[in-house]
Formats: sequence, structure tokens, C-alpha cells
Amino acid sequence: MEKKDESIDQIKTRVVGIDIRVDRTTFAVVDIRGEIVAQDYFLTSDYTDINEYVAALCERVVALVEENGGYETIRSVGVSAPSASAVTGCIENAANLPWKGVIPLGAMLRDQLGLAVAVANDAHITALSEKSYGSAHGMKDFVVISISHGGLGSCFFSNGQPHLGFNGFAGELGHTCVELNGRQCGCGNKGCLEAYCSEKGLIKTAEELIAASKEPTLLSEQQELSIKTIADCCYKGDKVAIEVFRKTGEILGLGMANYASVLNPEAIILTGDMTQAGKWLLKPMRASFEEHVFHNIKNKTRILVSILKEGERDVLGASALAWDVKEYSLFK
Amino acid sequence: MEKKDESIDQIKTRVVGIDIRVDRTTFAVVDIRGEIVAQDYFLTSDYTDINEYVAALCERVVALVEENGGYETIRSVGVSAPSASAVTGCIENAANLPWKGVIPLGAMLRDQLGLAVAVANDAHITALSEKSYGSAHGMKDFVVISISHGGLGSCFFSNGQPHLGFNGFAGELGHTCVELNGRQCGCGNKGCLEAYCSEKGLIKTAEELIAASKEPTLLSEQQELSIKTIADCCYKGDKVAIEVFRKTGEILGLGMANYASVLNPEAIILTGDMTQAGKWLLKPMRASFEEHVFHNIKNKTRILVSILKEGERDVLGASALAWDVKEYSLFK
Repeated sequence: MEKKDESIDQIKTRVVGIDIRVDRTTFAVVDIRGEIVAQDYFLTSDYTDINEYVAALCERVVALVEENGGYETIRSVGVSAPSASAVTGCIENAANLPWKGVIPLGAMLRDQLGLAVAVANDAHITALSEKSYGSAHGMKDFVVISISHGGLGSCFFSNGQPHLGFNGFAGELGHTCVELNGRQCGCGNKGCLEAYCSEKGLIKTAEELIAASKEPTLLSEQQELSIKTIADCCYKGDKVAIEVFRKTGEILGLGMANYASVLNPEAIILTGDMTQAGKWLLKPMRASFEEHVFHNIKNKTRILVSILKEGERDVLGASALAWDVKEYSLFK
Repeated sequence: MEKKDESIDQIKTRVVGIDIRVDRTTFAVVDIRGEIVAQDYFLTSDYTDINEYVAALCERVVALVEENGGYETIRSVGVSAPSASAVTGCIENAANLPWKGVIPLGAMLRDQLGLAVAVANDAHITALSEKSYGSAHGMKDFVVISISHGGLGSCFFSNGQPHLGFNGFAGELGHTCVELNGRQCGCGNKGCLEAYCSEKGLIKTAEELIAASKEPTLLSEQQELSIKTIADCCYKGDKVAIEVFRKTGEILGLGMANYASVLNPEAIILTGDMTQAGKWLLKPMRASFEEHVFHNIKNKTRILVSILKEGERDVLGASALAWDVKEYSLFK
């Protein structure tokens, strides 16, 4: 076997991606081609104290790294977290995480791991993952919309770069108004897209249509209303359930059309639990989108569903962010 | 006087900016600091044949240049035109210009002037002018909205670059839906922002409110309804006229809030005739904007009115575009 040529510098060919969500924290060692070498997780909600949380996270990351090639193979760390700022590396007043106020997560991880760390908010990371390893590969102008239980998040890329906005708060498509004086939204405003197009919004629409329905509906027999149980009723031919998704898709298509008219993206990529509803949501969404979008881009926007696995997408996106880190002391 | 050192290359310190509008074509020689050395115009509508138009334009540009420093001082040419593509240099199916179809304007001007030419659509040029010489100077993420007789156009910059979109059609804020099944818009859709927030939309609102009013109103006595005549009635205390702008401002603020929630710009800069209405429009617009924008950017977006002169802004923007041209043969 040949010896290493010591006149040539060696590069480190792995990074760590960390995906912090309200329910669980997933972390992985990822190689230069986006292959996940090893992955693990623990429950975020087990730690109400941020210092204990970071200590536990670092301990587990170190263990995973040591079992899989060792510390010296790791170049840097990328982190996805709700309400995180890429500039400061802080989680800032996250509504649903157990830790309140401004958490200097990037600096804490850097100091305890001894590695360069990059941080970004979850919507940005999802879009970066789609660009790096998913449906947006090779695209410069695209939108990713994530619809799940809690809400509707989005991020877009402009000229190949993420558009984060002046304060880092861009992408609040969920809080654009689609119905003046419409349904009350958790943000305090009325008629927000998220108030209709999230699992919570879907359930609310189901409850309204069940109450208004003169026909019997399978929805009334469900122990729990959810994307899954309502979609199951659609497959059984339940008209009210079908109408729930039709109405939701129609509103989603309108919100997406408004977004596309100002952005003219190459594609809109949908992710999150809501995409599980399949055609019941997507067909009325598409019809409404093409009806409302400005005529010069009608039938020009690709609408795609993410091809990445839900459990891997954001650790992959976080790992993609890690490759960009050049400076150890990015955060104060 | 010292001789020129011939071992040093000489740079050309002037460009030509051309602003093509439906009514008139303005062109100017502009120096490296954005000072207009000389400016002239002619009526666009005098030429229904594109070849005659381009010949006349070139003749007049050459005359202006020769009277003001000579051809050898000019580096390049920048052009602003409706429905123009920066990539192809073509005007593509402009709704209101006299020339139909796809016009290879950039290539025609380059070939006849013998200078490198850059072309961009009017909304992009207006935003570039604000960034180069106006209210957006020093900003990376900002929006410019132009409201005039015909419509409502917009362009935004992301990370310091214009966001043009995948097909170059971004910025159609005027055709985002602000009222489901609302007023018919010229684009074929209903409830578009432009159907309310343009001079045409304003007049339509005035006509509706005059018809519905039980009180006498000065608006009924106007020979012609326009931004100016309606604003004049506001200054005379006419309640219906004030309501016309209040309603228009309220809808404009909603459309701007939706835009800001997804873009999080540092500033929104308003240009065009509609800004002449002053407080009658801007006060209700601002209140509605802050009411509807997502809470984390409430009171964080600067809303400005252009400080550039209407007759100079777009030739200046076109000249700013000219500085970026490096290649003579940009267009086929």
C-alpha cells in the first residue's frame, strides 16, 4: 500500500448534520456525496434545560462520530432548527421548543464540539436539501413549501441563493392573507393561508363541513380527525372528506399562485405530511393554481412532491449547509 | 498640459440610457457618477414600424452623443422597455407598444449603433435606478412598486441581485389575488391587486362609490376622473373622494403586506403617478400594511416614496444597466 504523500494537504470528507425539531433531534454523519454513513436520534422534549440538551446532543454526536470513522474525518457541523438565524447562529424565541428566549446554539455547539458550526432555520434547510439532493437539484429559482401539523412554511432560492430577507424572516407564505376577514390564525391575523392549509386548518375545515352536512359522513365516525384519517375516508368514497381536501387544495392553489406570480419559480416542491393526501389534495390544488396564476406563466411552473425521505431530508440539508462553513469562529 | 501616458489604457466614462415607454422614448448621455450630461425624447407612438422606430432612435442618439462629447466617450447602452427580456434582449409581445410579436431590440440597436447593448424590462430598471441613485442605495433586499395609469408593476432585489425568475416574468404583484371572485382584471383573472390599485382601478372605485353615495359629492362634478382630480377633491374635504383613496390604500396595504411577509424586504419604495395622492392614499395603506403583515416584521419594513424625478428615473436606471455590459455580442 502506498504511503500518503505528505506534501499534499488532506481534506476531511465528512460532516455532521443535526435536525432539531419539536419532537425529536436527528443527527447523522454524512459523506461528501450526501450518503448517510450513520444516523441516530433522541427526544428533544426530554430536555427542558438548554445546557443539558446541548451537553446530551454533543455526547451523542461524539459517540456516533467515534463509532463511524472518528473525529478527525469530520470537517464541520450543520444545524437545522426552528426560528434559527443563519447570521447569529441563535434560536430566537421559538414558539414550540422548550427553551425560551435567544439561545446561542451555534456558539455552544462549536465550543463543545471543537468544530466549525453553521446554523439555519428549518425552512431554509429543507430548501437546501431539495437543491442539494432532491427535486430542486440544478435549479436556481425554486420554492419549497412544507405543510405539516403545525403550519405551512416555505423558502425560496433566487439566482441560486436562499432568499432569507433583511431580518432573516422571509418565507412566511403561511401568513399571507387568502381571505379578507377569514378564519382566525394563531399568529393573530385573520384569513392566513396557514389557517386553512395545515393539519390543524384541515381538521377545522372538516369540522365545519361535518356540522354543515345533511348527509351522513364517515368523518363523524373517526376517533380522531387527521390528514391520514380524512384521506382514508376519501379512498372509501366519502363525499364530505373529498370536499374537505378539495376546499383545502383550492385555497392552497390560490396561495401558491400568488407566490408564483411574484417569484416565477422553475418549480414549487411540496413536502411535509400533507402531501400524503395525494390526489385528493393535489388535483384541486393544481386546478386552482393554474386558474389563479398570472397568464404568462400558466402551465410553466413545475409542481413536484419531494422525493427525499421525511426522516432524512433535513439532516441531509443540515449536512449540505456544513460544507459551506469556512470559519471556526462564525458566531460570537 | 501633460500628454496621456499611452502605456495606460483609457476608460470610457459615459453610457447611453434609453427609456422606451408607450407614450414617449427618452434617451440620455450619463456619466460615471450618474449625472445626466444631456437628455432628449420623441414620441414612441409616431412610429408604428419597428424598423423606422429603431432607425429614428439611433439617429437621435448619435446626434445627442456627437453634440455632447462624441461617440468615443461612450462605453455602452442600456435600454428599459416594457415586456423586455434581459436574456434575449427582445421585447416579447408587449401589450401596449405599437410593435407586435418578438422584437430583437437589443441586437438591432447593437448592430446599428456599433456599441454593446443591455436590455431589461421597465420594472427591473426602475428598481435598479432606485438601488443605483435613489432610495434603495446601499440595500440588498428591497422592493420597488410602481403604480400608474395602466397598472401596478414591481421588482425586488434578493441578496443584492434583481430577482427576475425562471422565465424572466417575476414581479407580477399586480396580478396576485386580493379578493376571491373580486373585480374583473384586464389579465382575465378576478380580484387582482391591479384591478383596484392602478389609476383605472381607482376610477372604477370612484364610480362605484359615486353611484352608491346618497350624499352629493364633488366627484360627480369632475369633467374627468383621475388620480389628480380625485386627490383635489380630497383636499377640498369631499368625503366620497377620501373614501375612494381610503379603500384603495387599504387594499394596497394588504397586497404589500402579503409581499413583505414572504420577502421580508428592508424597504418598499413606491413610485409612479399614484404616489401624487400623498396622505390620502399612504396613510390608510400604511395602517393596512401593518395590520396584515406577519407579526415578526411588523414596524420593521421601511415604506418610502421615490426621491428620483419621474422623467429621469428610468433613463438613469437604463444607464446603470449599461455599466454592467462586458460583451459586445450579448444577443444573437
